[in-house]
Amino acid sequence: MKLKEGERLDYIAGTELQIVQSPNVFSFSIDAILLGRFVQVPIQKGQILDLCTGNGVIPLLLTTRTKAQLVGVEIQSRLADMAKRSATLNDVHNRIQFLESDLNEIPSAVKKSSFDVVTCNPPYFETITEHERNRNEHLAIARHEIYCTLEDVIRVSSQYVKQKGKVAIVHRPERLTDIMTFMRSYRIEPKRIQFIHPKKEKDANMVLVEGIKDGRSGVKCLPPIVVYNEEGIYTRNFRFNYEGKEF
Amino acid sequence: MKLKEGERLDYIAGTELQIVQSPNVFSFSIDAILLGRFVQVPIQKGQILDLCTGNGVIPLLLTTRTKAQLVGVEIQSRLADMAKRSATLNDVHNRIQFLESDLNEIPSAVKKSSFDVVTCNPPYFETITEHERNRNEHLAIARHEIYCTLEDVIRVSSQYVKQKGKVAIVHRPERLTDIMTFMRSYRIEPKRIQFIHPKKEKDANMVLVEGIKDGRSGVKCLPPIVVYNEEGIYTRNFRFNYEGKEF
Repeated sequence: MKLKEGERLDYIAGTELQIVQSPNVFSFSIDAILLGRFVQVPIQKGQILDLCTGNGVIPLLLTTRTKAQLVGVEIQSRLADMAKRSATLNDVHNRIQFLESDLNEIPSAVKKSSFDVVTCNPPYFETITEHERNRNEHLAIARHEIYCTLEDVIRVSSQYVKQKGKVAIVHRPERLTDIMTFMRSYRIEPKRIQFIHPKKEKDANMVLVEGIKDGRSGVKCLPPIVVYNEEGIYTRNFRFNYEGKEF
Repeated sequence: MKLKEGERLDYIAGTELQIVQSPNVFSFSIDAILLGRFVQVPIQKGQILDLCTGNGVIPLLLTTRTKAQLVGVEIQSRLADMAKRSATLNDVHNRIQFLESDLNEIPSAVKKSSFDVVTCNPPYFETITEHERNRNEHLAIARHEIYCTLEDVIRVSSQYVKQKGKVAIVHRPERLTDIMTFMRSYRIEPKRIQFIHPKKEKDANMVLVEGIKDGRSGVKCLPPIVVYNEEGIYTRNFRFNYEGKEF
């Protein structure tokens, strides 16, 4: 497998998987890994869809947690190409299909109401200046709501997930009210929520939310994840959640 | 001041205030104290309304944090009577007015859109069996949505709070989606949220939410409060939040 200019290979934490990244185009973040570990997945079979998949880190990680078939949708061809090469490199290309598509125009071959789980680590920022957009369009599209809004993500997730299937997203806590109200309005009832705090005395800077299509109301708030201890090193609790194993 | 049968006096944590309680009628909980410490109040003047005030613990506590005028509304005459006697006992009866009223029928002397802050520690449970109801009606009314629902609480809070005033409630995390969606639908935008976990590795069992009438969207998730450490004693962090001072 050939790396293109500016690309490098990194390991996905807690796995033997390598992934193509490029700081100028796209690198996955802690957020995506935590979502990939947080979401509840069927073990032996099923169908899982990842929206805004970027370089495919969530489906790649999920190959270590499930035997389900995985579909990743990414609007940027440069990123979809990286994702496909990573799947081949790790010999999981038979289990993951990466589609280059706007999530609002997913091809009809992908069936609605057919996924056990839909995941998404969407762009976080609602607005963008012309300057930011021009500086690096790849990063701008991945980070800002240019081609899809939070409402798009939740509406499309709801269309593709099965009855009683799960929808899990990671976002900034600032958007929690939006997430919960959009989820409920698109019949995804929030069921599990977990906050990530950079340090134990700091406000949360990330939130994980999992809902169930047409689920009963009632949400559980899991123990918080605290990333750094007083010495500025990863807590055991964070490493457990990030790498998926005890230390 | 005379105690009635079954009543006793307890201190409100972190204060010199004494409060009339009765295990068979009503005792305040940790929840109310944490709400009274969490809510942001004007210091020098203003108007604060507490709905479902019970034996008045929140307005009593708030006399130590603000010089605002306080109004507490309670539907049960037995509890409103306890609250009034506690106000007199602590010599704050000039600053707190306790009204015996259904919150859906507050007397017109209490002006709408006039409060800087509205607080509420409402009944938590949606349903009740006949058996529970018959066993102890005082406790049943305080704990179950018999005379007011969560939606009533948020709707009435929104009616009485000023533009840009604050509404703060404490509830079970299970109801978070309801709280956030009702708040937004009654134009209270959630702004601050804090979870209470009994131990650091346990799910939250309480949530504090503060919103602003016609506020801008965007919620902050404060550092969690963990009540007990591994030895089963109060954490310093909990005591700070509960008693309002450093240790």
